Amino acid sequence: MASLILSVDAMGGDSAPQVVLDGLALFAGQRSDVSFQLHGKARELEGPIEQIGLSDRCSIVHHDHVVAMSEKPSVALRRRVGTSMWGAVEAVKTGAVQAAVSAGNTGALMAFSMLALRKMEGVHRPAMTAIWPTIKGRSIVLDVGANLEADSDQLLTSAIMGEAYARAVTGKARPSIGLLNIGAEEDKGRDTLKLAAEKLRNPALGLDFRGYVEGNDIAMGVVDVIVTDGFTGNVALKTAEGTARLVASYVKDALTVNAFSKAGAVLASSGLKQLREKMNPSNVNGGVLLGINGVVVKSHGGTDPEGYATALGLAADLAASNFRDEIASGLVRANREDGDDL
Amino acid sequence: MASLILSVDAMGGDSAPQVVLDGLALFAGQRSDVSFQLHGKARELEGPIEQIGLSDRCSIVHHDHVVAMSEKPSVALRRRVGTSMWGAVEAVKTGAVQAAVSAGNTGALMAFSMLALRKMEGVHRPAMTAIWPTIKGRSIVLDVGANLEADSDQLLTSAIMGEAYARAVTGKARPSIGLLNIGAEEDKGRDTLKLAAEKLRNPALGLDFRGYVEGNDIAMGVVDVIVTDGFTGNVALKTAEGTARLVASYVKDALTVNAFSKAGAVLASSGLKQLREKMNPSNVNGGVLLGINGVVVKSHGGTDPEGYATALGLAADLAASNFRDEIASGLVRANREDGDDL
Repeated sequence: MASLILSVDAMGGDSAPQVVLDGLALFAGQRSDVSFQLHGKARELEGPIEQIGLSDRCSIVHHDHVVAMSEKPSVALRRRVGTSMWGAVEAVKTGAVQAAVSAGNTGALMAFSMLALRKMEGVHRPAMTAIWPTIKGRSIVLDVGANLEADSDQLLTSAIMGEAYARAVTGKARPSIGLLNIGAEEDKGRDTLKLAAEKLRNPALGLDFRGYVEGNDIAMGVVDVIVTDGFTGNVALKTAEGTARLVASYVKDALTVNAFSKAGAVLASSGLKQLREKMNPSNVNGGVLLGINGVVVKSHGGTDPEGYATALGLAADLAASNFRDEIASGLVRANREDGDDL
Repeated sequence: MASLILSVDAMGGDSAPQVVLDGLALFAGQRSDVSFQLHGKARELEGPIEQIGLSDRCSIVHHDHVVAMSEKPSVALRRRVGTSMWGAVEAVKTGAVQAAVSAGNTGALMAFSMLALRKMEGVHRPAMTAIWPTIKGRSIVLDVGANLEADSDQLLTSAIMGEAYARAVTGKARPSIGLLNIGAEEDKGRDTLKLAAEKLRNPALGLDFRGYVEGNDIAMGVVDVIVTDGFTGNVALKTAEGTARLVASYVKDALTVNAFSKAGAVLASSGLKQLREKMNPSNVNGGVLLGINGVVVKSHGGTDPEGYATALGLAADLAASNFRDEIASGLVRANREDGDDL
């Protein structure tokens, strides 16, 4: 028996279950120590699982229903029982699995996770992460959409959670932290940010806080963890995605403009393959709702098999890491400091 | 005598006055109908202006002082008299020139513009624009930093101002408008946005309002005008700049990775030249503070001569357009509607 079990919402995502199963096959080939609990329509899953030769590493839990990608989270929450997504998340709660993965409806997955796994002590509002490719490697941005607003305490909580998470994801011993603002000067920006910066500077927290960072600093890898509210983070993330797509279309145009450029593209193909690899969003697929009692990884709904395998890998790494204990002790430190202020 | 005069803050910008003068020379070569009033240190300007053969089209107004790039706007405001920036802006107020351009301190330029030119009637808070390259051409994003927050009325005002401005900049008869949010569904996002969307849908305003857009929609050119608060807009703009720089570094790596890719890059050079041209931020240089009684164009502080020429061209185009009259009548319509609601 494998040492680690992941539950998988096999019906969640734009091209489920096909992409999910293809991603599963990819990942299973890389990691023989992981087995899977698949949640979804048994009839659609049994055949393919046998075909890819994973019957011995996969158990299938049948559910009649699927949360639609466009369903309102509040509606999904009422109808949760009997859905593959709820099954996958509940399996984390019962301890049957160590982590869950879904490429389904983001809002519903966050709501289900909160309900099933409950918030960690000391967390007012969980935060959603994104892994961001940078010129130096990868950074973590949070919150990218769990909450529309964030006060200074929530920003502090996000910083503590993001730092522990970044350690698990990037392997850096002491990830640096920046607060997203519209200027690097200390007196810039909203009052909430000034207050959060003050709290983050408290040496008792032991954080490597580098002050404010701006939007252009994210891709430059200026810090390892970028803290912001969920509205700003979501806009930044999607704006970056749009910009990357725009530039990719420019590059494609440049290399197909005439016969010379086409021939040049053929010659440069090994470099361009690297470029495509670097630009591939599948490499950074996987968001995590931090601040709940369990690991649930959200895959991009439109990801490809490689991307789904990346999300499964993230879930496996996080299940094996102690980042949630680190978050818990960080929050205790922060709350103690908060108490001292009174 | 030329029909149009622009005032130029010759000392504003990271590499002033060199880049300013080079940009001026470029632009003067393209537009023989424009002459210039240069504000700055006469000793540093007279020689170069004569050298580039523009003495007959440039008058020089001497000022002893320069606003530092890092100076706090409040401090700059107190010390404004005797600075090249204040001189350039004041010339718009007196009517000596039709528009001003500066690559200096953004906060100071906004403060000077507000003080010298005053807000238009019906404008609570002016908004700063950015011209955004898209897959379809160019879009306008505002506010990108004049105000940290925006209520629904300010968002409405920004939409009206941005629409008239987009007409002047892009030549489209009826630019479409979107409100930046973190989801396209009607019930998504902050209450302020829902209220603003409701106001923008009022048919009496005659706006082509398309509802919510997300960060990735900006570069896709989904709408012509993207309306948001100054904090979110500034983060989005800088995040896009950072992403473009990151991808450009990837492309460079891809085309220098080995001898084949280098040879490929040589073959593809005409396409790659187009790519560089498309990626060149100089093409979209120039932000405008909308909602004041006059035209002041902010050039990027670190722009090159081409970029400075672009900003001068924007100033000339705006000075010749009637976009401020359109804004004024749009605001009257909006305020009338607002009155009807009572």
